[in-house]
Amino acid sequence: MKRVLVTGAAGFVGRHAVAALAARGFEVHAVGRTAPPGLHAFHAADLLDPAQRRAAVQAARASHLLHLAWITTPGRYWQAPDNLDWSAASLDLVRRFREAGGGRAVVAGTCAEYDWAEIDRLPRAELESPTPRLRSEGDAAAIRIGQLFESSPCRPATLYGAAKDGLRRILAAYAATADLSLAWGRLFYLYGPGETPGRLVGDAARALLAGEHLATSEGRQRRDFLHVADAGAAFAALLDSGVQGPVNIGSGDAVPVRTILEAIGALTGRPELIDFGARPLGPTEPACIEADIRRLADEVGFFPRTSLEQGLAETVTGWRGALSSSASAP
Amino acid sequence: MKRVLVTGAAGFVGRHAVAALAARGFEVHAVGRTAPPGLHAFHAADLLDPAQRRAAVQAARASHLLHLAWITTPGRYWQAPDNLDWSAASLDLVRRFREAGGGRAVVAGTCAEYDWAEIDRLPRAELESPTPRLRSEGDAAAIRIGQLFESSPCRPATLYGAAKDGLRRILAAYAATADLSLAWGRLFYLYGPGETPGRLVGDAARALLAGEHLATSEGRQRRDFLHVADAGAAFAALLDSGVQGPVNIGSGDAVPVRTILEAIGALTGRPELIDFGARPLGPTEPACIEADIRRLADEVGFFPRTSLEQGLAETVTGWRGALSSSASAP
Repeated sequence: MKRVLVTGAAGFVGRHAVAALAARGFEVHAVGRTAPPGLHAFHAADLLDPAQRRAAVQAARASHLLHLAWITTPGRYWQAPDNLDWSAASLDLVRRFREAGGGRAVVAGTCAEYDWAEIDRLPRAELESPTPRLRSEGDAAAIRIGQLFESSPCRPATLYGAAKDGLRRILAAYAATADLSLAWGRLFYLYGPGETPGRLVGDAARALLAGEHLATSEGRQRRDFLHVADAGAAFAALLDSGVQGPVNIGSGDAVPVRTILEAIGALTGRPELIDFGARPLGPTEPACIEADIRRLADEVGFFPRTSLEQGLAETVTGWRGALSSSASAP
Repeated sequence: MKRVLVTGAAGFVGRHAVAALAARGFEVHAVGRTAPPGLHAFHAADLLDPAQRRAAVQAARASHLLHLAWITTPGRYWQAPDNLDWSAASLDLVRRFREAGGGRAVVAGTCAEYDWAEIDRLPRAELESPTPRLRSEGDAAAIRIGQLFESSPCRPATLYGAAKDGLRRILAAYAATADLSLAWGRLFYLYGPGETPGRLVGDAARALLAGEHLATSEGRQRRDFLHVADAGAAFAALLDSGVQGPVNIGSGDAVPVRTILEAIGALTGRPELIDFGARPLGPTEPACIEADIRRLADEVGFFPRTSLEQGLAETVTGWRGALSSSASAP
């Protein structure tokens, strides 16, 4: 019997991970403050409270752990001191899970662990070229600029990235001493129904559907966006595999942010509301961030199912329904 | 008024740090389970207990923090899961210190954070040559093999090293967001009076004074040994400076372990008890580990005061006194 304990199960990714884990035959337990649908068991606990955390881990007696919970408040999570609390709580969570008999764990990492400055060693004008360039033209093993491999150097520019990076380094060493099978799923950019405000796709869809002006950058930077249902399913597949170490969880295909916004403009019927170039691109924003997903595909055997076109259409439809039902509320 | 809160104040290094801090005009507070002599105030607390830890930090209201406490049980600390608890407790300790109004912190790191495998890229026979070799003969900026700079790559081979390395990465990012002045003192090898069993110099002195046979390796590996009083004084000087980031705390001069043991043989008058080559050198032991101490000397302005000859003589005298008083006890 495979029994998994999921943290962050009620979150953006967690809800989809719970469904995918159940579909794979896991008995799904969750720990946290809010229970999502579809669980076999829920252990109510504040994960930042040591006694509650340990009691929940003991009660679950799970064989598998999927640890997604973290501070995710948009705008705040990049530099909030809460990142220290989550690193500390995660160290204890994984240790207690192992000592309660667990054998396989997957923890959520982030593309913000990588050295983004490394991406921008070439002039930005070249990097923003709409056609993917090669680092070394004519080289058979050429690498696209901005393509990030699990072996790429990690040098986070934010406290969020550093907290995840430091946690990963410690947990990897712990796993080696404690006979724990551990993988680290590095999330790239996500979108999909249920996004909290402060994220690109949801904010754009909501603004255009509400008839609001949308001030944005030129949008030439390319980003790797994955539908959140695919992210949840990828975590479930990774946990269900024996693959260890870092594994990128992305689409493998970075697209210009402009392309995404233009699609949302077309889907909402309000492309004229988008003012490209009205805001500068942040100075630390790299020209391209793209996951190399060969480990995910070849070793885990997972392939994203939702195309960007399909996913954006579904997301805009979701926001349209949410806005019209709130507008017609008494 | 400079008020420092010291953790691990009753430990091997801590006792010397307390004396050196008091000599520099600090009002010295300590937190832990045991109070060393020479304090202005002691806050009894188990640092691994969140409530006790936070209460002590609040009570101390210190401007400075020197965090030395960690699991140090010889033989066990390299791979013990307690390293996770100490990383977690340290993250919270530094955050609470800052939030209680503290502005300057120094945390103890280790030479085990560095990539020791990097040192041994050359054949061991060459590396074990008794004369220091250069990486590039004739190069004005030549680097001695095994010489470790603060900028050398970190890739710890142990859980202890990984826990310190991960902690440092997270705390450095936190300090940058929280306007905290933070330095990280990387300790190399230590010796001196009061060493717990399981460490080279104390064990050798005790064995030879007791007339016991000492089985050891060939002893050609070179190690950077610093007298513990100098280590304590170096931490006090570092804390009292504005230097930030990693700073090596060592002698700057690695000597063959054989030379150290031969000196202890001569000082105890029992050189014939040492059996060089009776034990193999561990496979992960690099040929040389030496601190580059230019940051400590040039930026902090600290220079070790005790020569190895003088320090070893003092240590052997200390053990001779301890053994004869215990032998004559009723």
